[in-house]
Amino acid sequence: MELTDFLTPGGEWLRGDGRDADVVMSSRVRLARNLAGFPFATRASDEQRSEILGKMRTASETLPLGPRRYFVDLTPPGSRRESKELELDRTLLHERHLISTELEKGKGPRGVAFGSDERVSVMVNEEDHLRIQAIRSGFALDEALADARALDVALEGAVRYAVSPTYGYLTACPTNVGTGLRASVMLHLPALVHAQEMNRVFQAASRTGLAVRGFYGEGTKAMGDFYQISNQVTLGQSEEEILRKLSRMLPTFLEYERKVREHLVATYRVKVEDKVFRALAVLRAARTVSTDEAMELLSAVRLGVVTGLLTGVDLARLHELFVLVHPAHLRRQAGRALDTAVERDTARATLLRQRLSA
Amino acid sequence: MELTDFLTPGGEWLRGDGRDADVVMSSRVRLARNLAGFPFATRASDEQRSEILGKMRTASETLPLGPRRYFVDLTPPGSRRESKELELDRTLLHERHLISTELEKGKGPRGVAFGSDERVSVMVNEEDHLRIQAIRSGFALDEALADARALDVALEGAVRYAVSPTYGYLTACPTNVGTGLRASVMLHLPALVHAQEMNRVFQAASRTGLAVRGFYGEGTKAMGDFYQISNQVTLGQSEEEILRKLSRMLPTFLEYERKVREHLVATYRVKVEDKVFRALAVLRAARTVSTDEAMELLSAVRLGVVTGLLTGVDLARLHELFVLVHPAHLRRQAGRALDTAVERDTARATLLRQRLSA
Repeated sequence: MELTDFLTPGGEWLRGDGRDADVVMSSRVRLARNLAGFPFATRASDEQRSEILGKMRTASETLPLGPRRYFVDLTPPGSRRESKELELDRTLLHERHLISTELEKGKGPRGVAFGSDERVSVMVNEEDHLRIQAIRSGFALDEALADARALDVALEGAVRYAVSPTYGYLTACPTNVGTGLRASVMLHLPALVHAQEMNRVFQAASRTGLAVRGFYGEGTKAMGDFYQISNQVTLGQSEEEILRKLSRMLPTFLEYERKVREHLVATYRVKVEDKVFRALAVLRAARTVSTDEAMELLSAVRLGVVTGLLTGVDLARLHELFVLVHPAHLRRQAGRALDTAVERDTARATLLRQRLSA
Repeated sequence: MELTDFLTPGGEWLRGDGRDADVVMSSRVRLARNLAGFPFATRASDEQRSEILGKMRTASETLPLGPRRYFVDLTPPGSRRESKELELDRTLLHERHLISTELEKGKGPRGVAFGSDERVSVMVNEEDHLRIQAIRSGFALDEALADARALDVALEGAVRYAVSPTYGYLTACPTNVGTGLRASVMLHLPALVHAQEMNRVFQAASRTGLAVRGFYGEGTKAMGDFYQISNQVTLGQSEEEILRKLSRMLPTFLEYERKVREHLVATYRVKVEDKVFRALAVLRAARTVSTDEAMELLSAVRLGVVTGLLTGVDLARLHELFVLVHPAHLRRQAGRALDTAVERDTARATLLRQRLSA
């Protein structure tokens, strides 16, 4: 399997276009599905998991995954050396938001199918047998849902789902039962972070049954001032209700971030410009940069671009860097092992200089 | 009095040329002299101080001060507004190292004579009636002494010095009696500061009777990793002995700094480059910069230039900035009051961007 050929252009969701793209980086819809006649993935034997994986490999050949199809078997093979390569691929896919932490770090037979524009993917043997995922740039939950549904319908023609007439789609975890839908938006909230207003965001989200997570979803920390906001419960709600709830709350967060941005620019324009211009200058000049610092500086540059303080930096190009600065991508690009932090920080700085040079 | 016309080009000592200019920014010789027939300046009445100032104004017209002569009366006038202007001029002259903190902040009739290349100056009614000062770029104590002596000889023809056949030139403070000579070198020691080796410099200096001071001499802090090293005692030593002692110790400091620079570049090249390139990038991009940060960043850039890591930055142009970033210079250049720190930091950033743009 060769992942290198599709790695440089970022996924469609990194384009920086779509509605409310000043705050909303991307919208994501995920459907949890399980196959009838198999125990849930967590209880299935390796043979059963392999069988599911095999069924999905066959099914994926006819699925509407996008311009070019990939099916990646993430099952650890026998030899240690191959396993190192595979580990890198798994991390790479995770860095691209194509697979979850669970699929990256988990055990046993598992895999992922996706299209080369990275708009839709199907994880196999994650917590559920299948997790259909659709991501779009900007605020586009309806479009993402439509993408996921199209895939869902196609899959339903190829495999047999586990469905209860009472509860709807059966899932390994009760919070997903029903529609099996989880919707989320990735928000860029540099102004709220700067103004130390994030606690109010957390409170507002928690009051309305929304979860706030980091850049890589559940259990990950915020990086580059990115926060993923998602619905918590799916049982007893229709897909439309779930999306409507998130969509109804979203303007509050967007307006909050925008107001604070406006306030910062109006009241502390020089300071904001200072932060933005320094960040870009450092990214263009540094010889060694850690992941966290890179994300922080890129966030400041993104703030500069979306507030109009900074011109001449392409948003799509910038967004790709939020993915490309991570270790597996750096290593892939370097074409050799980058074993020490010093090597990675140096490679990261080189990449940033090249990609952001004026 | 118009000081603006000679303010932009830096003094000769900022050129960055001369021997050992990689470490030695400048060499300075100062002679303390008092006039016969007057009490020491600290005990003289305002009338007596005015009389001395008047004598010096007349004498300065024939002194070898350089291509163009300036005589600046620093005596506070009656009106408050004029006094504000004068205060600015005094700070300006102090920022250029043309007058001491004592002459800047002191009271009563006082002044200074100097040439437009700022190589020699005579302060009037500082601690002593006259303080002849000569500064040269790089390690050039002999040349500075020659400049100071030429001025001393010319002055001796114009006024009558207080001299004791036993002690030599009489001075207000006993540490200056004899030759009245103080010699100093301004060293740039970024590597020793970075490697936290300055305590050893302080100890070595103290053991050999040398004083280590900050960028603006006695009682000032180090800025931009600049340290002034000078002799402490003049009584009982000839001018040559004083200079020889400082010159004998100097190579120890120079070699020490150079060794640590070499070590840093050899062992942590990427980190040093990172520091240097970031510093220049920030200076070229920032929208607000404090004096301390400016001095620190300029110091890193200077390290880059003298170690050859950085090309395309002119050392003389860089050195001027070590003076131009200070408040009175910023205000002079702005042509208006810069009353708040925010205004000054913004003006400083603008100046740095303009002067260092690629």
